[in-house]
Amino acid sequence: MDMAKLSREELKRELSILSKEYEEFRSRGLKLDMSRGKPCTEQLELSVDMLAYPYRDKNYKTASCADVRNYGMTDGLPEAKELFSKLLEVSTSEIILGNNSSLSMMYDAISRAMTFGVYGSPEPWSRLPKVKFLCPSPGYDRHFAITELFNIEMITIEMKEDGPDMDTIEKLAAEDDSIKGIWCIPKYSNPTGVTYSDEVVDRLAAMRTAASDFRIFWDNAYIVHHLTDKPDKLKNILEACKKAGNPDRVFIFASTSKITFPGSGVAMMASSESNINQIKKLLGIRSIGPDKINQLRHVMFFSDPDSIEQHMKKHAAILKPKFEMVLSILDSRLGDRNIAKWSRPNGGYFISLDTLPGCASAVVKMAGEAGVVLTPAGATFPYGKDPQDCNIRIAPTLPPLEELKLAMELLCTCIQIVSARKLLGT
Amino acid sequence: MDMAKLSREELKRELSILSKEYEEFRSRGLKLDMSRGKPCTEQLELSVDMLAYPYRDKNYKTASCADVRNYGMTDGLPEAKELFSKLLEVSTSEIILGNNSSLSMMYDAISRAMTFGVYGSPEPWSRLPKVKFLCPSPGYDRHFAITELFNIEMITIEMKEDGPDMDTIEKLAAEDDSIKGIWCIPKYSNPTGVTYSDEVVDRLAAMRTAASDFRIFWDNAYIVHHLTDKPDKLKNILEACKKAGNPDRVFIFASTSKITFPGSGVAMMASSESNINQIKKLLGIRSIGPDKINQLRHVMFFSDPDSIEQHMKKHAAILKPKFEMVLSILDSRLGDRNIAKWSRPNGGYFISLDTLPGCASAVVKMAGEAGVVLTPAGATFPYGKDPQDCNIRIAPTLPPLEELKLAMELLCTCIQIVSARKLLGT
Repeated sequence: MDMAKLSREELKRELSILSKEYEEFRSRGLKLDMSRGKPCTEQLELSVDMLAYPYRDKNYKTASCADVRNYGMTDGLPEAKELFSKLLEVSTSEIILGNNSSLSMMYDAISRAMTFGVYGSPEPWSRLPKVKFLCPSPGYDRHFAITELFNIEMITIEMKEDGPDMDTIEKLAAEDDSIKGIWCIPKYSNPTGVTYSDEVVDRLAAMRTAASDFRIFWDNAYIVHHLTDKPDKLKNILEACKKAGNPDRVFIFASTSKITFPGSGVAMMASSESNINQIKKLLGIRSIGPDKINQLRHVMFFSDPDSIEQHMKKHAAILKPKFEMVLSILDSRLGDRNIAKWSRPNGGYFISLDTLPGCASAVVKMAGEAGVVLTPAGATFPYGKDPQDCNIRIAPTLPPLEELKLAMELLCTCIQIVSARKLLGT
Repeated sequence: MDMAKLSREELKRELSILSKEYEEFRSRGLKLDMSRGKPCTEQLELSVDMLAYPYRDKNYKTASCADVRNYGMTDGLPEAKELFSKLLEVSTSEIILGNNSSLSMMYDAISRAMTFGVYGSPEPWSRLPKVKFLCPSPGYDRHFAITELFNIEMITIEMKEDGPDMDTIEKLAAEDDSIKGIWCIPKYSNPTGVTYSDEVVDRLAAMRTAASDFRIFWDNAYIVHHLTDKPDKLKNILEACKKAGNPDRVFIFASTSKITFPGSGVAMMASSESNINQIKKLLGIRSIGPDKINQLRHVMFFSDPDSIEQHMKKHAAILKPKFEMVLSILDSRLGDRNIAKWSRPNGGYFISLDTLPGCASAVVKMAGEAGVVLTPAGATFPYGKDPQDCNIRIAPTLPPLEELKLAMELLCTCIQIVSARKLLGT
């Protein structure tokens, strides 16, 4: 039943029923949070046995006899570098391990670029009259917050089904030398769930950029975060960049935040040796090394990348029913109404939903007033402004199934109400 | 036997005996490292039972029911903030906990000041034609490396027995508004062992500064790192600053690196609420929180500041014999020679030794050639240049007693040889 095809009378009748539904929700005093992509408690329990290490074996020395408890190893524990370089499909000389937050590593990469430039920069980015970044959107609000903080102008790029709009990216990057970078979440993208196609990866790696020190910030946050048995495959961008003659173009980021613990994972950064060496020099002035006991803990818990893949199947088993329920409610409540469309991701942490233009903020506000917190409308766009006001990011991972069901029912009610009002012009 | 009072013949005879001693050392192929203030293995063992937590109790929730394993708590775990704010004698709203490295927190504080300014800055420091820092010296080479990296001009300030030369500091700070800060290690200073007197603390807190956003970088690295039963007392500088009407003047740094593990401690920063709030906002963009499992681990291991003090007595029991041996060898080998003087610290990680002017680099080089690595001569001064070429930093904590004895004997031989040569004018 296409809502746009209803008569004004029918719409008003619907609206009256929906409003009663909404008021009923509201009276229940719900307090549900679907705003952030946080793992749920069952997911956190999957990794607690990691915390027994390395105490259980009382072995704190690496193969090279360095004591992980002491100072040193600026770029990380060699054994952990080996494990995670396999995960990222790079060599051990192309990776740096940090503490618990890949977001920090991205922030620091931007901060260093501004203050010192990246490897090969003619000058620090902060000396330029203007620095711009390409921002495929909807995207990750925290990327945009970093960019905004450093006064980097953000250019919104449309997300398509196989990645960002490459025609526009190629055109802009080639003609404007103040465009220094692009934010990408190339696999199970936040929030669209899109995995970049091989063609998109190759075009990003090979395109001409007016800035000689252009960098792709490749936030591979969901590298092994599959929801199906047929995971998406992402082409190795570091290899693609090398092949295209732009070996230093990409900064790859990842972490175990959503593999082990968001609070106590291991963050990592991969890039060309030239980039890594430049960064290691600066890191060596900033710190005498990251938390290597925690890195050892990870290596003891995960013997190899395959054991990480196996572990991720347990996460998927917890998350799959949640995603399925969200999709089934969306299908049954909105499937034939023609007032919203949504993603069906093969992995990652989000479902991206587009309402009719101009409806998203009203929906989020309404849901909030009934006790369901969603990611603020607009947050997935640069400067928090969704030009169409239509994108809503649904984060199904944290709430228990029962709560998620309630929250989704409410969300669908809100979407229908706001859409009906819009169609009525009220 | 004052070496300066020996005849040339006597000096030559001595030199010949010493040179044989040196050659004997050299032929042994020693490989000893006294270059850095690293805890030794026995010290690391003191804290290993901390690593049993929180796994042992399987309790990952805070009093406020937040899960430490998940995202959140940008400024640290509330329970850990409570513990460490007591240690630093500040309130829980005046502290931020980080990951394992206080050096990183200092680097980040400088980096933020350059890019954004500190709370109340008229503009970011990087916009100014020149930024200068006062650097009491000998001091900590890693402080100076950060300052140099950010192109901040360093002004060497003489260290006296009760802290840095306040007359000079007051004069310079009052007249030059490009002087934005000062590095201080106020307790058991690196390397001199000096603890700042109450008068020095008060003068730093109260002095007039031409820059309205002047900051004291107060690296309280050795806050509980006593070597005697009568520990030095350091006046609370945050209180002193408040009393003097300069509440925002100080950034205090500390960590558990040399309490628990250098690789996996908890770093902390304390300051006025205005400073802390400005920093928290920026930290919230950089990360979704530090490693709170590790903070919980610390809180479970140390119930209160007193248990930290008790724990530090175990460290002292390991370190005291090392310091005593170093001092006794210095006394017996150089005590009456009038060619060197050295500190007798009540705490901290170093003994600072001054040779005759112009001798330190030759001594360090000679010791190195016989297999004993010392901190490079000059490292304790800005730009690595000791104007007198006389300061040597002795780090007795890492080597086992037997090795330390050998290294010290060799060092004394080298000092005598280089001094004799100098007196002979050869």
